[in-house]
Amino acid sequence: MTAKNILILAGDGIGPEVMTQVKRIIDWMNGKGLTNFVVSEGLVGGCSYDAHGTPLTDETMQRAMDADAVLLGAVGGPKWDNLDFSLKPERGLLRLRKDMELFANLRPALVFDALAEASSLKLELVKGLDIMIVRELTGGVYFGQPRGIETLPNGERRGINTQVYTTSEIIRVAEVAFDLARKRGSKVHSVEKANVMESGLLWREEVQKLRDAKYQDVHLEHMYADNCAMQLVRTPRQFDVIVTDNLFGDLLSDCAAMLTGSLGMLPSASLGGDLGGGKRRALYEPVHGSAPDIAGQNKANPLACILSYSMMLRYSFGLLKEADLLDQAAQNVLNAGIRTGDIMAAGCTPVGTDGMGDAILAEL
Amino acid sequence: MTAKNILILAGDGIGPEVMTQVKRIIDWMNGKGLTNFVVSEGLVGGCSYDAHGTPLTDETMQRAMDADAVLLGAVGGPKWDNLDFSLKPERGLLRLRKDMELFANLRPALVFDALAEASSLKLELVKGLDIMIVRELTGGVYFGQPRGIETLPNGERRGINTQVYTTSEIIRVAEVAFDLARKRGSKVHSVEKANVMESGLLWREEVQKLRDAKYQDVHLEHMYADNCAMQLVRTPRQFDVIVTDNLFGDLLSDCAAMLTGSLGMLPSASLGGDLGGGKRRALYEPVHGSAPDIAGQNKANPLACILSYSMMLRYSFGLLKEADLLDQAAQNVLNAGIRTGDIMAAGCTPVGTDGMGDAILAEL
Ligand SMILES: CC(C)[C@H](C(=O)O)[C@@H](O)C(=O)O
Ligand SMILES: CC(C)[C@H](C(=O)O)[C@@H](O)C(=O)O
Repeated sequence: MTAKNILILAGDGIGPEVMTQVKRIIDWMNGKGLTNFVVSEGLVGGCSYDAHGTPLTDETMQRAMDADAVLLGAVGGPKWDNLDFSLKPERGLLRLRKDMELFANLRPALVFDALAEASSLKLELVKGLDIMIVRELTGGVYFGQPRGIETLPNGERRGINTQVYTTSEIIRVAEVAFDLARKRGSKVHSVEKANVMESGLLWREEVQKLRDAKYQDVHLEHMYADNCAMQLVRTPRQFDVIVTDNLFGDLLSDCAAMLTGSLGMLPSASLGGDLGGGKRRALYEPVHGSAPDIAGQNKANPLACILSYSMMLRYSFGLLKEADLLDQAAQNVLNAGIRTGDIMAAGCTPVGTDGMGDAILAEL
Repeated sequence: MTAKNILILAGDGIGPEVMTQVKRIIDWMNGKGLTNFVVSEGLVGGCSYDAHGTPLTDETMQRAMDADAVLLGAVGGPKWDNLDFSLKPERGLLRLRKDMELFANLRPALVFDALAEASSLKLELVKGLDIMIVRELTGGVYFGQPRGIETLPNGERRGINTQVYTTSEIIRVAEVAFDLARKRGSKVHSVEKANVMESGLLWREEVQKLRDAKYQDVHLEHMYADNCAMQLVRTPRQFDVIVTDNLFGDLLSDCAAMLTGSLGMLPSASLGGDLGGGKRRALYEPVHGSAPDIAGQNKANPLACILSYSMMLRYSFGLLKEADLLDQAAQNVLNAGIRTGDIMAAGCTPVGTDGMGDAILAEL
């Protein structure tokens, strides 16, 4: 395997400490000759603002564009809450998504057998749950123009954001969802508010047309976003793949993540388009946030970040065996009852962030 | 009590049959001299489209404006799914909300002791749950301009909606939330995506200013909408009053409703501003939809609609004793184990829509 460049952006809060455990795994895989990754690091979010006055420098942005894959920890924290809108830590992450054109955000909501009891839902409703949420990530109200806050002649203020989607933006993310469904349960729920929003109506029509033209073997259902929020709580196992826009995806994927009871376990992948030669830009990050309240205390669960790295092996480099190896190591560690605080249960062995890293390496 | 005009719009699907039970209760209360309501009826939604080619006629709209309160069943169904956007059943409901200026939508998410087992969440998480969601109902992306679907020069289509809020729109609904909180747990969570949307940032700033100026006795927390979706599933009892915009409110109130496990039980009130003389426009409706799959089968649970009527007694007419009487009758019927199919449990007595109405009347 030729050398691949990985850019690591550990970010804020617990980002750096969970990333430390991933770096140990990368070293181990490189050492075994399973991978040939050249790792470099950069800043994003509040730490970049502290160092450079911006949540993402142009130089780091360029390095992300050039990397074969980017692995991100988490951004944000109360320290930066009062910064101007354009300087907030989140803007760094949003710029990465937009400039790298990472339009398809894959968020698995998976219940691990060993952790099914941790869900706030009744066990029989979530056991074996395996939903893949495909969230559009570079369009919609997150990036639409016009936007901003203006002062009206009468002294009032007015805040504006614009939800906008084009045919091609809808189709490319729906294709990702249909392709994934074919490898899974062959069922897609497309989620919008077509009864209220024209952009949602366009979404519905285009997804249906695509299905009829290219994916007749996949079962497609349309669902309103409010109903989807309900159904996720009521009978989550009815879902296989859910495809939805940027904003609904933000809420629904967090809701689905929480159903699993173990947010500290959930990885995500954000994928760009085909750049030719099998290359596509990609960024991997845990679903959990920067958790400033426990940062630096060796309490954070590194598994979500480790499993994000496993998604990288799988989606960016086609290293399926290596990804399986890592996923299996995580399973085994859980089955052996080794637990960080967030997933602790009676009779299990408590470990810290680095203890979890030790356990994974011992398994490998 | 001088006569009050109530407009009943039963709507589509199960709307008419649940409303029949409410009308029996109105008759009973009128007969006892507890109320002096003059009831008239009209069409809204698909049934109005079938009769008049529009989901709401100007004449019915005018009657709603003139009524002392409006009671609505439900609108929509697959029969009308392929109608043009402007003719969909939902547009009738949205026009009522907009033209009556019903900016504050109150959606209690209440777990009834007798039904706590029905929740998909573990009993210990939802027992005693009592959240009041205050959803902004006449602004945001539901009504913002520009909106629509356009065809671009390259043949692609583009769907647009606009999220817009002004200072005064935010303040008036936040006032409702703070006032309600004062009569409850004195805690408000204000929910937006201020980290991503400028309209959400304005929302956050204005709500905070209002709290500091007029409601210092109320505890205010700001929460991102994605986190709120998570927290509702994780530890719902942390919430007292939630105030949020039209779209987030749509999703979050449905999610909260589903936590209770008994959607067929949940009422809502939509309130307008003070018109002077203690008068404000108001519309009451169950949270559940038109449930076309069980319509006309005497299966629907009329309690959500009956409790919506009880909210009308309370909020529009200050008839607190009468509202309590009705709420208590519903409690007693549940405690006696009388159940429609949606809330059926082992050992209980199954009844149909009219059987539930009988039971409530017997209690009264
Ligand atoms: C941090 C924030 C900008 C981000 C989002 O809203 O997309 C986060 O909530 C997420 O889901 O990745
Ligand atoms: C029927 C529909 C237009 C409506 C909405 O989106 O507001 C419904 O979902 C609701 O919550 O009352």
